[in-house]
Amino acid sequence: MARLNMPEVLGELFAGIVLGPFALGSLQIWGEPLVAFNEHVLAFAEIGAILILFVAGLEVGFAQFRALGSQSLVIGVCGVLVPFLLGVYVVLVVPLPPTDLPAALIVGAALTATSIAITMRTLEELGVLDSIEGRLMINAAVIDDVLGLIVLSIVISIITTGVTPSPAEATWVVLRTLGLWLGLLLSVVYVGSRLLTLSKKWVARGTIEMAATALCFGSAALSAAIGLHPIVGAFSAGMAIAESKVLAQVREYIGKVSLVFSPIFFGVIGARLNLWALTPMSIYGMLLILAIAIISKVVGCGIPAALATRSSRIGARVGVGMISRGEVGLIVGGIGLAAGAINQDVYAQIVAMAVITTIVTPILLRRSFGRRATSDKFADMTAEQRDASLNTSL
Amino acid sequence: MARLNMPEVLGELFAGIVLGPFALGSLQIWGEPLVAFNEHVLAFAEIGAILILFVAGLEVGFAQFRALGSQSLVIGVCGVLVPFLLGVYVVLVVPLPPTDLPAALIVGAALTATSIAITMRTLEELGVLDSIEGRLMINAAVIDDVLGLIVLSIVISIITTGVTPSPAEATWVVLRTLGLWLGLLLSVVYVGSRLLTLSKKWVARGTIEMAATALCFGSAALSAAIGLHPIVGAFSAGMAIAESKVLAQVREYIGKVSLVFSPIFFGVIGARLNLWALTPMSIYGMLLILAIAIISKVVGCGIPAALATRSSRIGARVGVGMISRGEVGLIVGGIGLAAGAINQDVYAQIVAMAVITTIVTPILLRRSFGRRATSDKFADMTAEQRDASLNTSL
Repeated sequence: MARLNMPEVLGELFAGIVLGPFALGSLQIWGEPLVAFNEHVLAFAEIGAILILFVAGLEVGFAQFRALGSQSLVIGVCGVLVPFLLGVYVVLVVPLPPTDLPAALIVGAALTATSIAITMRTLEELGVLDSIEGRLMINAAVIDDVLGLIVLSIVISIITTGVTPSPAEATWVVLRTLGLWLGLLLSVVYVGSRLLTLSKKWVARGTIEMAATALCFGSAALSAAIGLHPIVGAFSAGMAIAESKVLAQVREYIGKVSLVFSPIFFGVIGARLNLWALTPMSIYGMLLILAIAIISKVVGCGIPAALATRSSRIGARVGVGMISRGEVGLIVGGIGLAAGAINQDVYAQIVAMAVITTIVTPILLRRSFGRRATSDKFADMTAEQRDASLNTSL
Repeated sequence: MARLNMPEVLGELFAGIVLGPFALGSLQIWGEPLVAFNEHVLAFAEIGAILILFVAGLEVGFAQFRALGSQSLVIGVCGVLVPFLLGVYVVLVVPLPPTDLPAALIVGAALTATSIAITMRTLEELGVLDSIEGRLMINAAVIDDVLGLIVLSIVISIITTGVTPSPAEATWVVLRTLGLWLGLLLSVVYVGSRLLTLSKKWVARGTIEMAATALCFGSAALSAAIGLHPIVGAFSAGMAIAESKVLAQVREYIGKVSLVFSPIFFGVIGARLNLWALTPMSIYGMLLILAIAIISKVVGCGIPAALATRSSRIGARVGVGMISRGEVGLIVGGIGLAAGAINQDVYAQIVAMAVITTIVTPILLRRSFGRRATSDKFADMTAEQRDASLNTSL
């Protein structure tokens, strides 16, 4: 995939699909299937998901999160609400295949979080990473990640209690989840800075790495204990460590450790896909969810961006750049399948949506920039002037 | 432990003893024990053992192994045979607690492999790492590691078949195990060099690391399939990679990954220790095994070294430096306990032997060198002259 100039994660997904228990993995060797899920593989995959969100938190950072401008906030919030609400609504109204509320909520949650990594790499290749579009996309994607995880927590809470909430109850669930997350984040930031300061005083090899590991998994366990998903805690732990001076060391360590766990996660995601269970109708459903995924981000992020910058061209570019869904969408799909909220049909649609949006985003983004490296309106401004111009326009 | 200038691994062992299911881990929290072994913890510990031997193989290297001189070979072979035979004999003759042949074989196997890391660090501190004693110890420890694993393979083969072999059968088992190991090593060296050359052609992040991981665990699986212990395969894979140009990259990667797995291994080793099950008699047994451990290496390595260098002082230093047992002894004890070949008493004796020899070796070694940094006889020679002098003396 790297040779084909495509995201490497797609290779891991395809390997899972091809080698999984529904395909080549079902071949019998000495009376046993070649590949089967046992508790060890699933545990490694879960650890992989936790580490992926921990790395995402390291990239975002608590300080950067607090410093976000109002324009990114609006783009990010609309970029979560529009896909979620549109997804839930359309999936309920057009049942391809027939779905209930839990399945619709999982689809909606899987549609929220943007995978900014692909977009960032494309912007870098085009040399426009520091353009106004680039900065808007990265900041909005941070909001997307945080809100996407909160939406997921709310969806899980609704699915496990089994009650469709009234508007008042829904507001209460939203506020309580937000409150729990903020409490978790602040305590992890507090404990994390103390722990890392302490661990730096020790001379033994690996103390900082172990403190970071303990913070990541401790926060994930705490998160699960208060009713949020473990990955929310891992993400918060990453945000806490991103502020500290040991960030580079922790990032290098987790990068190596993730080499073991994260391909197993994506492999399991792919291997869970049963292509034989698909019907013609689920292909239509796949196309429908894909259409929602693309339209909802182009509209939900593009229109606020166009209004903020008073440039429809910048709006279109931001909208296109936010299309790609990746890790979080796949994790949400996996959680939904494991919880029994969605069936193989819907799971396949979510995986296909994540894969195809990841493939098309760099292509569309390159096309939208054409040969011009930066947008017309801000081409001659400095970074500070751009920020000032943006902060007054919203 | 690092602060106390002691090996860090002792801290991991003690943490396991204190927090394990036989001590603080048995405290009930909400009706569940605080720490319990589940299949995930045991799987992590097994992966830890495999990685520890992989790292040991990386340090040894296939090229270095082939280039060993005859004097190191004799010291290494005697340093394995004397502890093994003396251990098996004394444990059978003096049953403290009463033991059968499988238990005696496990004790013997646990007594073979020297843990050179502690000795190397001490020699470095004394500034005599490149002395004649240092070079003899490191090379002989390489032989110890290899032969120790072969002894373990033979012991496991005897325990699982349950037959006490006749001398002819024993010779056959030794030759077959040696042949299997050499075949495994050569195929891993062959496949490994091809795989790593191939993986360097790929541009994707982590290809070399994943090739090394695949070689390590593939070789461990192959080793298990042909009837050797998985750690023998992991050690061979490490030796194969040590020859390649990617050694530094693989060593750094495995160093980070081992930070996760290897403390869990040592923690589990410690946690398996049930101090409450010990009787006064098992304390005597512990002292007996400790005495065998010290005497057998001082005699088994020291006398050949004294003959080779015609210096009783060098012989004594080499003998003292080879006393420490570490990872391999603990792994052998763990295998014996898991296979039911030894009981808690004997297991505790092996763990105590490994811990105490690790603690006393640096103390005795410092004392044996006194204030003089290098030995008298070879003080004025260059490294080449020393080698020439050694190669003629045996």
